[in-house]
Amino acid sequence: MTGFVSFVGSGPGDPELLTLKAVRRLKDAKVVLFDDLSSGPILNYVSSQADLVGVGKRAGRQSPKQHHVSRLLVDYASQGVKVVRLKSGDPGIFGRLEEEITALQNANISFEIIPGVTTASAAAAAAAIPLTRRLSARRLQFVTGHDIAGTLPDDLNIKALADPLCISVIYMPKRTFPDLARRLIENGMSRDTKALLAESVSLPDQQLTHSTLGQLSKQLNHETGSAPGIILLGPLA
Amino acid sequence: MTGFVSFVGSGPGDPELLTLKAVRRLKDAKVVLFDDLSSGPILNYVSSQADLVGVGKRAGRQSPKQHHVSRLLVDYASQGVKVVRLKSGDPGIFGRLEEEITALQNANISFEIIPGVTTASAAAAAAAIPLTRRLSARRLQFVTGHDIAGTLPDDLNIKALADPLCISVIYMPKRTFPDLARRLIENGMSRDTKALLAESVSLPDQQLTHSTLGQLSKQLNHETGSAPGIILLGPLA
Repeated sequence: MTGFVSFVGSGPGDPELLTLKAVRRLKDAKVVLFDDLSSGPILNYVSSQADLVGVGKRAGRQSPKQHHVSRLLVDYASQGVKVVRLKSGDPGIFGRLEEEITALQNANISFEIIPGVTTASAAAAAAAIPLTRRLSARRLQFVTGHDIAGTLPDDLNIKALADPLCISVIYMPKRTFPDLARRLIENGMSRDTKALLAESVSLPDQQLTHSTLGQLSKQLNHETGSAPGIILLGPLA
Repeated sequence: MTGFVSFVGSGPGDPELLTLKAVRRLKDAKVVLFDDLSSGPILNYVSSQADLVGVGKRAGRQSPKQHHVSRLLVDYASQGVKVVRLKSGDPGIFGRLEEEITALQNANISFEIIPGVTTASAAAAAAAIPLTRRLSARRLQFVTGHDIAGTLPDDLNIKALADPLCISVIYMPKRTFPDLARRLIENGMSRDTKALLAESVSLPDQQLTHSTLGQLSKQLNHETGSAPGIILLGPLA
């Protein structure tokens, strides 16, 4: 008897932004592995009989190694139970899903993916900003502000990111944004490009900072704070 | 007494991919304006006392003009009731949200945006494909395959799209994909780049076609069918 793993997108944090399917999977699970960003009141849907296992990976803090999380996932599923691997936002977007899928496939364990509301959509909704515009923002792109070492990925397509006719969303952006901003400006992007920093999106302490590429870079060079954030850049209005 | 409009993302079509907040707004609404792609069983959540108004805009068929939809939205909200404007996927992504927001702002009508699961996330989840990969797909981009006239937008950033180190998702792609594919190949993208056509994502007649840039272009040049679709392109595995 083998178990089954559901990778479940928790959405940005507000439990009301869970999907009906995510809630059903949480209620049925015997084990739930969760990150720091998909914790809090979301976990109230989990049965009191289930095991809750925190495998937090929050920006800037020490966290379990990825191979340790994959091993836990395989171990729990091998006990023949329903396991939920809860991931913040949508599991397919900057969620290190690939490594965990590979581990399950190598262990012959079946899985499914339940998509969720990605943080970019929730941040834009909170700010009442469309992520695409018919004339000025026909392309939308997502990148991560840090690679496995916590620095700016060195293979960024800066030309694609400096395009003024699209909206770019940077996940996990705060510590590396001054470096990214400098490279964007060197590649012709205006310092006055609109920028929105959205922190703790959809949570009670949500904060939206409307700024510009140049200003936000200065601000984050000075102080990044500890709240998880996301940055939207481009023709935001 | 003025009304209030909730722009609500319906997700890709499966009612279980509605968020809890979306369901609550549907239950409370006095009027629901919906598109063809956010219809079907999703509308079962709407109160039997509410008005259901179809403003369908499905690819390739005649549909109400955008200004007519905006006018309807303002007219219903001006009656002082709770209006839900249901949009497939996430309302901020290729949902023509900008025009409807502007109409409400001009009429001094308050609104909110409830984000939803965008079709790209649901398509990737159905195919068990991560939309980002730590080494090979650190950038994710969304474009639309048709502009207001139904043809390929003429200001596409083809260099950004032909980048082999990202995953591109093309919304409403089917009629213009052969044209887009030709331009991508001219700009150096390999014909063997992996491509996935996902049709009727999350619905009972969902169909996933695993292909390549070259093959899918040939297939869609021959026959596009009528099911709504989305194409994922890049390092999919």
